[in-house]
Amino acid sequence: MTTNKNREIILIRRPEGMPREEDFRLIETEMPVCRDGMVLVKTLYLSVDPYMRGRMSGVKTYISPFELEKAITGGIVGEVVQTKSPDLKAGDIVTGNLGWRDYNGADSRELRKFDPGIAPVSTALGILGMPGLTAYFGLLDIGKPSSGETVVVSGAAGAVGTVVGQIAKIKGCRVVGIAGSDEKTGYLVHDLGFDAAINYKTAPDIKKAIKDACPNGVDIYFDNVGGEISDAIMPLINYKARIVLCGQISQYNMSKPETGPRVQAYLLVKSALMKGFIVIDYADRSDEGIRQLALWVSQKKLKYAEHIVEGLENAPRAFIGLFKGENLGKQIVKVS
Amino acid sequence: MTTNKNREIILIRRPEGMPREEDFRLIETEMPVCRDGMVLVKTLYLSVDPYMRGRMSGVKTYISPFELEKAITGGIVGEVVQTKSPDLKAGDIVTGNLGWRDYNGADSRELRKFDPGIAPVSTALGILGMPGLTAYFGLLDIGKPSSGETVVVSGAAGAVGTVVGQIAKIKGCRVVGIAGSDEKTGYLVHDLGFDAAINYKTAPDIKKAIKDACPNGVDIYFDNVGGEISDAIMPLINYKARIVLCGQISQYNMSKPETGPRVQAYLLVKSALMKGFIVIDYADRSDEGIRQLALWVSQKKLKYAEHIVEGLENAPRAFIGLFKGENLGKQIVKVS
Repeated sequence: MTTNKNREIILIRRPEGMPREEDFRLIETEMPVCRDGMVLVKTLYLSVDPYMRGRMSGVKTYISPFELEKAITGGIVGEVVQTKSPDLKAGDIVTGNLGWRDYNGADSRELRKFDPGIAPVSTALGILGMPGLTAYFGLLDIGKPSSGETVVVSGAAGAVGTVVGQIAKIKGCRVVGIAGSDEKTGYLVHDLGFDAAINYKTAPDIKKAIKDACPNGVDIYFDNVGGEISDAIMPLINYKARIVLCGQISQYNMSKPETGPRVQAYLLVKSALMKGFIVIDYADRSDEGIRQLALWVSQKKLKYAEHIVEGLENAPRAFIGLFKGENLGKQIVKVS
Repeated sequence: MTTNKNREIILIRRPEGMPREEDFRLIETEMPVCRDGMVLVKTLYLSVDPYMRGRMSGVKTYISPFELEKAITGGIVGEVVQTKSPDLKAGDIVTGNLGWRDYNGADSRELRKFDPGIAPVSTALGILGMPGLTAYFGLLDIGKPSSGETVVVSGAAGAVGTVVGQIAKIKGCRVVGIAGSDEKTGYLVHDLGFDAAINYKTAPDIKKAIKDACPNGVDIYFDNVGGEISDAIMPLINYKARIVLCGQISQYNMSKPETGPRVQAYLLVKSALMKGFIVIDYADRSDEGIRQLALWVSQKKLKYAEHIVEGLENAPRAFIGLFKGENLGKQIVKVS
């Protein structure tokens, strides 16, 4: 079985601006008790995701904030090591929203079984998990790509962006990625088949770079970052363009909302759409999404990259790294 | 028949900021020749509309700019006084996009017949014309109102806003209008049945005023004005809210685009939609729209107001008045 010691990472203060490691603490706790209907799950990998920054701020949005002195919760894939539920047996691989702990006690109904025969279990947190579904539903349901259209994706080398661009290629689009290093832009073009990629940190004129990469304008902009990169794209949108608002990572660490050029006039003259979404809007269609993504992965039409940090104690650092652009592909923490 | 003299209003320079009467000139011209397939139309009423400001700027958007030294063109309703087309006979009332002239020669295929038995002919420029269709398609096709939802409309006392609010009431919504005088807000509440109306020029705190008028938040915002009024509404939007971008009259006379609070984060956390449109997006459904609007007018479910200025020579002043909030309802110029 297991040891009697458990560890977890708690939030000890709400970050101001960029989160710091001192905002978190690793503590030792007791092993959870496995009650009827529950299972004990050993964490294999945990997910750090940009949206979690919002939960650290103490403001309720679509999801309640993290509580101080309590364990951070997020996407986890783990192995059932003890079970008091008829639904799951020891050895099953499961995924769910659990604490940043070595071991979690969990209601079996709040877990989803993951078939490790399909792909490595870590993909349950990436291409076959929340980020993959986010890309899938955002691009297909809001973006509605048609063959020949131009799709621009920002945060293109991240967990969501890499999937968005590849699905857009499957749909026959011209795909332009925006990312923050030459390693990333090279990966997008050479490994993932993007038509062009722009390093926004080194491009001398980001507006010109995007314009040059989009000679026919922009039909779909999948926005993971917001801010000045998005500002540069608005003047390039085509008639009936779709702007899919998935993330605004450039804004998450700002202490007060930023101002910028108003978007309304651009949307108005182009009869364009801008729509926000969160993946739980599509909760009732997640099986469809996972099935299609898994099929594309098995057909080698979708590739994925993971950026793995080892050790529960390093989860805060991995999370902070998201805002420094450290990850290429899905940022994951290997716990066990 | 007619006199041999014709008059027209030309644009002699592109306005900077607020248009001035000196930007226009009334000139005398020859009477148009009525060639085969054409008719001669005597202007009864002409329409001045906020979107025309964009055409004066010399920048191509969805529509080409007005040419200098040429007649302004816009919505006109007139009477056929001479015909060389089998489709129209003398005395027919027609509407179309024609020059600001006493008389226009026009291809009969570019005109729509208007049945004066339905309503006064001036309504062809308002509730049974472009502004009515704009309200109809924008609210119903993009806003998609459901009974019990809260609809806020800015520019509420204008040609479009008055129709938007009344259709929203027909659909069972709570309707809040924002307008610029107590005469207008009184009209909205007492004559048109809006649930509440706010005078943005006198409200001590526009954010608080809107919030108080929308205790259940905002499900649909029909935006005719943009700027600070729209800024005040973003924090109040509900999950899956729809923001219909119809106009941005507060911005039209600015020499360079204004900055403001970014809207993306609000749209993102609420899975909300913001969409621009122009009425010609729905050109193939205009018959449907006119039929439904005419039915509601005949059933007294839709009321309308017109603000009529007399004389072709006063068209520029009537146009400029739009930006000063002079009109309650549709601003029209009676020419003959």
